[in-house]
Amino acid sequence: MERHIALDDILQMEPAYRRNLMNSISGFKACNLIGTASYRKVANVAIFSSVVHIGATPPLLGFIMRPLTVPRQTYHNIKARGFFTVNAVTKAFYERAHQTSAKYPEAASEFEACGLTPQYTDTHPAPYVGESPVKLGLQLEEEHHIRANGTIFIVGKVVETLIDDSLLTTDGHLNLEQAGILTVAGLDSYYEPELLGRLDHARP
Amino acid sequence: MERHIALDDILQMEPAYRRNLMNSISGFKACNLIGTASYRKVANVAIFSSVVHIGATPPLLGFIMRPLTVPRQTYHNIKARGFFTVNAVTKAFYERAHQTSAKYPEAASEFEACGLTPQYTDTHPAPYVGESPVKLGLQLEEEHHIRANGTIFIVGKVVETLIDDSLLTTDGHLNLEQAGILTVAGLDSYYEPELLGRLDHARP
Repeated sequence: MERHIALDDILQMEPAYRRNLMNSISGFKACNLIGTASYRKVANVAIFSSVVHIGATPPLLGFIMRPLTVPRQTYHNIKARGFFTVNAVTKAFYERAHQTSAKYPEAASEFEACGLTPQYTDTHPAPYVGESPVKLGLQLEEEHHIRANGTIFIVGKVVETLIDDSLLTTDGHLNLEQAGILTVAGLDSYYEPELLGRLDHARP
Repeated sequence: MERHIALDDILQMEPAYRRNLMNSISGFKACNLIGTASYRKVANVAIFSSVVHIGATPPLLGFIMRPLTVPRQTYHNIKARGFFTVNAVTKAFYERAHQTSAKYPEAASEFEACGLTPQYTDTHPAPYVGESPVKLGLQLEEEHHIRANGTIFIVGKVVETLIDDSLLTTDGHLNLEQAGILTVAGLDSYYEPELLGRLDHARP
């Protein structure tokens, strides 16, 4: 049976129920850790499920920052240092990745608290997650404030990538499943994708 | 081995290689059909992998529209009618969903050309995809122009949902995998996610 839910019904739902429903209706999501460094060089890392492809030339990604109603270390650090990293989460460390969503004190590093390894290059100050097979370094490019709810769409340009060689295919496509990279649904459900098929470029 | 790729390397890649790489590095993506209606009531439908959760209260989703360098029916129709639908793609019809990415003439309906069923309600003029177990009706809320590459981040408010009853759990979370909902990587690789675990809310 198809259940019809109107906007009024959604607005009258119990908040946790609405949050679970609205976080799962858009489908499976990318599962990434975003790494940043504070002005005082504390390495911050937090899990995000909103990273989205914007373009290839120049290489651009975006993600949604929640409203600045409380201190947001990731946002603060990106503004202070101008760079951030996006790191794919795998089956091997997804429980540690999920743990980064806990509220740690500002002076603490989630890398240490959650058992993850910061990794640096000379290109920029933001820490990569050593455990990840697909690490992207991005420079802050734009931020767009969503008026409807106070969230911010952050746009970054990929200035560096560190990728496990074995995932790269001859045409540039990455075999994400080979490294155990996961997808997430809702706020807390982790999934392992299994390849169904690669389809040809569609023509009428 | 970890391959280090700098921005200059990316910009010098062969375009198709760069497109494949940049479309797969952000991880697994939501797999949705976006339905719109033209002023002349032609039902348009196209596959998108950039739908992202923005907020639950009010319920908001966003997605990336490619630059307006060529006619974009989806964009044109959203502007003309003010509404669009987001429909989850399942294993049962993902080949037909992929086929909507072909370039059909403006006067043709991709529903008909691809063997999909338009479904309407009295709430708004945009067509749902009858085959989909998770159908969302959205009102255009905002559009943000990404200066770096001319794409547009479209923000919509969910005004209606039609959901297969059996997917709804008691806390609002949807069991997407139960309906065979897929995830996509890169431009053309479709995956069936398998549940690994649902984790508790993280505390320090």
